[in-house]
Order: sequence, then C-alpha cells, then structure tokens
Amino acid sequence: MLVSSSPVLRRQLFLIRCLGGCVHQSYKKIQRVNCSSMEAMEADSTQVIRKITPSLDPTRHKGQAGKVAVIGGCREYTGAPYFAAISALKIGADLSHVFCTKDAAAVIKSYSPELIVHPVLEESYSIRDVEKESVSAKVLAEVTKWMERFDCLVVGPGLGRDPFLLDCVSKIMRHARRSNIPIVIDGDGLFLVTNNLDLVSGYPLAVLTPNVNEYKRLIEKVLICEVNNEDAAQQLLSLARSIGGVTILRKGKSDLISDGEIVKSVSIFGSPRRCGGQGDILSGSVAVFSSWARQHVSSEKESVDYSSQNPMVLGSIAGSALVRKAASLAFEKNKRATLTTDIIDCLGASVQNICPV
Amino acid sequence: MLVSSSPVLRRQLFLIRCLGGCVHQSYKKIQRVNCSSMEAMEADSTQVIRKITPSLDPTRHKGQAGKVAVIGGCREYTGAPYFAAISALKIGADLSHVFCTKDAAAVIKSYSPELIVHPVLEESYSIRDVEKESVSAKVLAEVTKWMERFDCLVVGPGLGRDPFLLDCVSKIMRHARRSNIPIVIDGDGLFLVTNNLDLVSGYPLAVLTPNVNEYKRLIEKVLICEVNNEDAAQQLLSLARSIGGVTILRKGKSDLISDGEIVKSVSIFGSPRRCGGQGDILSGSVAVFSSWARQHVSSEKESVDYSSQNPMVLGSIAGSALVRKAASLAFEKNKRATLTTDIIDCLGASVQNICPV
Repeated sequence: MLVSSSPVLRRQLFLIRCLGGCVHQSYKKIQRVNCSSMEAMEADSTQVIRKITPSLDPTRHKGQAGKVAVIGGCREYTGAPYFAAISALKIGADLSHVFCTKDAAAVIKSYSPELIVHPVLEESYSIRDVEKESVSAKVLAEVTKWMERFDCLVVGPGLGRDPFLLDCVSKIMRHARRSNIPIVIDGDGLFLVTNNLDLVSGYPLAVLTPNVNEYKRLIEKVLICEVNNEDAAQQLLSLARSIGGVTILRKGKSDLISDGEIVKSVSIFGSPRRCGGQGDILSGSVAVFSSWARQHVSSEKESVDYSSQNPMVLGSIAGSALVRKAASLAFEKNKRATLTTDIIDCLGASVQNICPV
Repeated sequence: MLVSSSPVLRRQLFLIRCLGGCVHQSYKKIQRVNCSSMEAMEADSTQVIRKITPSLDPTRHKGQAGKVAVIGGCREYTGAPYFAAISALKIGADLSHVFCTKDAAAVIKSYSPELIVHPVLEESYSIRDVEKESVSAKVLAEVTKWMERFDCLVVGPGLGRDPFLLDCVSKIMRHARRSNIPIVIDGDGLFLVTNNLDLVSGYPLAVLTPNVNEYKRLIEKVLICEVNNEDAAQQLLSLARSIGGVTILRKGKSDLISDGEIVKSVSIFGSPRRCGGQGDILSGSVAVFSSWARQHVSSEKESVDYSSQNPMVLGSIAGSALVRKAASLAFEKNKRATLTTDIIDCLGASVQNICPV
C-alpha cells in the first residue's frame, strides 16, 4: 500500500458533519488527537529532479520517456489543455495527447503539430437527451481504447463545467483508476472532484493541484471548516488524509505538498506575474515527473521507505520547482509582459540547468 | 460624484438642436458662457503610469492585476479584438477574454492560446426573425454570467455593424453600466454609441476613443456643429460635458483627453506609420490602466481631488503614452514595415522602461 489512509479520522469527520454544530472546535480537537503539530520541511527539489529524471539513453525507444494525455478543451477553452500538453513535451515526455470536444480540437491542433488531439468529448448543447446514453458510451470507448498506453492523465485544464461532459469525464476517471493510471487533477477537474470526492478518495495515484479558491472549496467540503493559514501544513495533511491519501499540491506563495503522511514545501522564487495558464504548465509538468518518479521508485532494488518515496509527492515537488524556475527565467527576460507561453519557452533551459544532459 | 455633468448646458444644446438654424453661432456663445477659454495641459504621463501601475507583489494571486473582456469579432473582423485583448495581457493584466461570433472565435483562439474566447455573439445572417428574441436573451445571459468578474470591458474592436449584433451589444452595455463596470468604446462601438448616446450619457466610467472621423461624427451628433481644430481643447471639454461627463480620448497628432472637467494632452512622439490596428492596442491598454487607476484611487487614504484623479482620465493618459512609446520603439526597429504586432511586441519593453520591476 503506497500510502495509508485513516479510516478512524474519516469516520470521526463523518460524525462531526452529522452533528453539524461546533464543527470547527471538534475538528481542531481531532487535529490534536491525530497529528502532532508540524511545519512543512522545504523539499530538496533539485535533488528530487536529478533523482527521478531518466537518463537519455540512445537505446531507449519512443514512449519510454513518458506518454501523457490531457482531458480538457471545450467550446470556451482551448489554451489551457494546449499549455498542459505542450509543457509535458517540453520537459521531456515523448508523446502528448489531448482529448477534447470537436469545437476545441481544430484550434488546439492549430497551436502545435506536436500534439495528438482527439475530438471525442461532447457538450450538452450538441446532443439531444435521447442520445445521451449512447454518446456517453461512445465517448468512454473512444478514450479507453487509448488508456492503457498512458503513463498519466491530466484531467481538468479547460474542461468547462458542462454537466454531460463532466459525467463522461467521471466515467473516464473511474476507468483510469481501475487501470491504476495516475491522474493529475486541476481547474474544472477540481470542481468535478470536489463535488464527487469518491472519484479520487483512497486513490494514491491521484494528485490534486488547487489554487487559493479551489483549495478553499476543498477544505470547506471535506473538513467543513475555514482555511487556516497559520497551521497550513497541518491542515493540508489532514485534508490529504481525509481524502484517503491522495497527494495535494496547494499552490501559493510557497507551494505545499502532502499525501497525508508528510508535508513538503517548495519556496524557490518563481515570478510575481499571475497571468492565467501557469497552473496548466504545472499540471502537465507534475504528470511527467510523477511518471518518471514511478519508474524510478519501481526500479529501486532495495526496499524503500515509501513515506519519503511516494512518486506522486516526488512528481509534485519536481513539477512545482521546475515551473517556478522556468517562470523566474521568463520573468527575468520579459518582466511585466511575461505570459504563459514565455514560461513554456523556458522549461527546456530550466531542466537543462538542473539536470544537464 | 466622479464628474459633474451640466444639465444647463445640455438643455441649452437641446434647444439649439430644436431651433435648427444658426447653430454654430449659438454654440460658440454657449461655449463662452460656460467655459472660459483654455489650452490643454500636457499630461505628466510618466508620472501617471508610475503612480497607477501596481507593484508585482508575490503574495498577489491570479486576477488581481486585472481581468478585461473585449466585446468584438465577427465574420469579417478577427484581428482587432485579438490586438485589444493581447495588448491587455502584454501590459500586465492577468486574464483577457473575447466575446465574439462563432465564425470569429476559432480564428481568434488560433492567434493565441493566452486568450479565453467565447463564441456567443450572433449576426442577422445566421438567425431567423422568429428566433431573434430568444437568441438575444441567450446572448445576454451568456455574457452577463461572466460580467461581475471583469474590471473593464472594451466594446467595439472588430464588432461590425450588423443591426442584430449591435442590439445585443447595447443590452450588454446597459447591463455593464448597471453593474458599474468601466467600458472603453472604440471602432464600431463608437458607431453604436454615436447613434444611441443614452448608452453612455452620464456614465462616468465610460471612455470613448474616437479617431478623426469618429470624432467628427460625435461632434456633429452631439454639438451639432463642425470640428473646431483651433479651439480643440475647449470643444472636447464641451463634448465630454454634453455627454454627461464621460471621458473622451481624441486620437490625433497629439491625443487630447477630457472628462468635461479638465483637458489633458499627450504629445510624446509615437510612430508616423498609420497601419490599421493601433487603435485596438490603445483600447486594450486604456482598459488595463483604467482598472489599475481605479484600484489606486480607491486605495488612497486621504481624500483626493477627483478632478485630477478621475481614474478613466488617468487610464487614458497612461494608455495613450504607453502605446506611443511602444510605437516609437517598433518604428525605430522596423521602419516603414512596422505593423501592429510589432508595436504589441514592444509594449513590455515600454512598460519596463517607465516602470522597472
């Protein structure tokens, strides 16, 4: 078992929810019972990146450095899935797919010939009620026939909130989970998961990457209390534990990462620009690094201490640090005009700085 | 009250219009009665840009540096809304949306993955008469559900003149006005507004950015006289006052800016190239700077003199100066081949020159 969830804590939280009143007090008590007070240790992210990044061995063949798929892209959003998918390639993955709606596909394809874009998702507006069941089955079949090839899914960038589309994506996630494929969840994927916690609860290969608002909604939904910034590490640990040991990368001034067992921080300086799309780079990066970390951990000959070797935690640390490094380089060059594409342009140099070939 | 309109003047002008004859003479008399003769003072635009541009504080999160939306883009025009929206990001806004027709959306999306493009507007050719009411309601609903998130709208770049589309845009503008969202109006938005002055009349958060022809039509419609270049500042002041204190940025060799209370000029050298699209850069820039100026003015602790602190005037001064600076840099490099995209490429360096991070 990769991480241990705490059924005791979950049952206690369930009871608190049922009791309703004085939730905050009761939750604080549980925190004291279950977790001793703690600070997040700064991760040695350079060492993590160096450890998990595979060597570029000429004998390796296409696909061995990673195949990722982004589930996202709808009528409104096309930039976000592109950012996630192209970032995966720029870091060093071999193949990057996007599964999106028909409307989004042509546009995403036009951003780059490097991506493989599947126009398979459907939104409510394009189908009649009577067709929904058959279309849903068809969408699932179209995606799952590819599923086994992927080392990691990224669910959420530019997904939108169409109920029919989200219902199809829930089925895709359940299938991925049965196939033990890691899933990084961001953006509207977090909206879906926050309202359907069973999709990820107890799945150690899930990574959630919430920003300040998404984290607030998660905390309110799962721990039924407010965000506590004074005891941030402790609360994140409780949250990850309450969702059964998923990994959570809480984005902020410092990124905090926990799987319910440990809490790590990544604080190296990034960029003060907050232009939209940086979260998509992160989700694509975490997908690649988590895949590499899984390969690395499974290749270790000695028995390892999983609490410090959870590949989803290692992948999150590496992704967080690398995107910060790239953002810092891009900001140095472009200053206030820095956009997400500028940061993507710096991913390669950042990997090379840390991990020269 | 941000600016005071002059009901007396407006009533007098109304009377003149009704009388028809000897308009010019009567208007000149009113000018003498209501406004003492004046020259436009050159704005200290560098100081304005430095004052209103927010610091890049690492604790800030996505959206705090500005979220703008461009309403424009139809079957014929796709470049203009792109220029306005991408300029906003290059100056330092965090998020930039475009609301356009379905035909325009895929193309605008393909110009840049950084924009969020909503294919929601409709033109007459694509709908039947019986559908118009329901489609209009749907368009309004699709745009207004986003409205509260925006710090400023830009109405007009590449909007076209389809009557049904303009009718929908009128409704969007009325909604924005009820929500106190600033609106920068250019291009075909000015055609709409000149024929429907009630859309902006008395709204202190509106900025009109007419070029020479658009200004002529406004003067003829509102003041019922010819453009008077000898007394340009005075006439602009009267025009802004007659429309109830909106801010007008009159583009020309020198840009003149008035809200009916003061008149400022921006004369720093730009570029002698007059390629299409520069006005779109300006409208996007004014949108961002006005948002920043509003933040700045509202954060001032002391009571301020609004006549020199109208955020729409400050935003117009900053936008005018910055675009001139960027055009000058672009022309230095590209000479006669200078295009709008070259000027956009120089926006970042221009902000950095004035306001180093």
